[in-house]
Amino acid sequence: MSRASVVVIGNEILTGKFADENGPFFIRRFRELGVDLVRLVTIADTIEAIADEVALCAARSDHVFTTGGVGPTHDDLTFEGIAAAFDLPLRVHPDLVALMERFGMPRDAANLRMATLPEGAELVLGEGMHYPVIRVRNVWILPGVPFLAARKFEVIAPMLTGQKVGCLKVYARNQETDVAAALAGIQAAHPGVDIGSYPRFGEGDHSLIVTLESRDPAALAAARAATVSALDVLRVEEA
Amino acid sequence: MSRASVVVIGNEILTGKFADENGPFFIRRFRELGVDLVRLVTIADTIEAIADEVALCAARSDHVFTTGGVGPTHDDLTFEGIAAAFDLPLRVHPDLVALMERFGMPRDAANLRMATLPEGAELVLGEGMHYPVIRVRNVWILPGVPFLAARKFEVIAPMLTGQKVGCLKVYARNQETDVAAALAGIQAAHPGVDIGSYPRFGEGDHSLIVTLESRDPAALAAARAATVSALDVLRVEEA
Repeated sequence: MSRASVVVIGNEILTGKFADENGPFFIRRFRELGVDLVRLVTIADTIEAIADEVALCAARSDHVFTTGGVGPTHDDLTFEGIAAAFDLPLRVHPDLVALMERFGMPRDAANLRMATLPEGAELVLGEGMHYPVIRVRNVWILPGVPFLAARKFEVIAPMLTGQKVGCLKVYARNQETDVAAALAGIQAAHPGVDIGSYPRFGEGDHSLIVTLESRDPAALAAARAATVSALDVLRVEEA
Repeated sequence: MSRASVVVIGNEILTGKFADENGPFFIRRFRELGVDLVRLVTIADTIEAIADEVALCAARSDHVFTTGGVGPTHDDLTFEGIAAAFDLPLRVHPDLVALMERFGMPRDAANLRMATLPEGAELVLGEGMHYPVIRVRNVWILPGVPFLAARKFEVIAPMLTGQKVGCLKVYARNQETDVAAALAGIQAAHPGVDIGSYPRFGEGDHSLIVTLESRDPAALAAARAATVSALDVLRVEEA
């Protein structure tokens, strides 16, 4: 199963100038694809922050997705940060310059900056796409503009190996402290299921949501039965 | 000026079971308080992930805020993770147990688990609060439930030193590539102002938003004048 990390390179998110749309997009798509998202990080646009975070994520996950910082302006530092992460030199990528020229983008300083990539960068062209997705090792470099990031992600999505995770939400009337020991016992008896416990306040009839997640339907059903018999359950919903 | 990091400890966010409300809350409040948010990270509920991230954030920022993982159940691992981050032993905190007893919480395994804190943890009681905010060094440990996290944050907010950042959004009709050099020049001439450039598509009359941010009003006004004379500006808004 693929494990993915997402690095949102975005002063504009941290300072609240723009709301983050890319994080929620990736959460939804990874869930649909059955890919495990292990880390979602929003960092400032500095070479050091990008380098450190990309190096860490690249070591801990199969695929890293960055968004933002790939334009032509002084605040676009993603390629420099990724080069620093892997200690790679930056070079103008001749194939990208050729592609740009084919699409009428002049060979000027701004466009050359966008074509200056860490050495070894690959260009991946999706069907009907003018501009490639750029990959460096296991890092996929996406733009910050949400609809462009989403479009490029769909080029990569078929390359990810996923298997959908079954998820149940068990709505109960218990107090979390009263059932903590029972839930620990169920977790121990059902190691193939991830059991989460979330107290809720003022949300209607329930005071607790217990979530059960597994890629194994039989294990999920067994954990469900154990949970339903241990708790004061109102209903179970597929989530 | 305080630099803050936020660590959302939340499988439930990464898997899309619940939407993250804490991240957007912190972004808004830090902006209002004039505190610099340098890092916003959502990680899984494992001791290793919590320990690594908290250690990193604690070293790089003045204040770290964690949310989630402080309840009585098996998936609540924040105290263990923070203890591991700083290589501290875990101990039942007698003052917290005494407080719990005063509020009628029995001395059972679930409550003792919630009172087992990294050595040296401090209890900070806000006005009118039953349950304290727990701090370990520069790490403030908040619950995952959004309204509780928000309420506890307001106990801490007056302790943070902030100074509001002035922010202008300049809406322009330019293409980003055409003005990249001009913006780099303005940035170099106005080092006290952070200049961001964000291309926009299909959002109305503008194709570019340039943001100007500074704590120095005079510097901001100078950068604004330079930007307005270099770009095809439609309007400037305070953001």
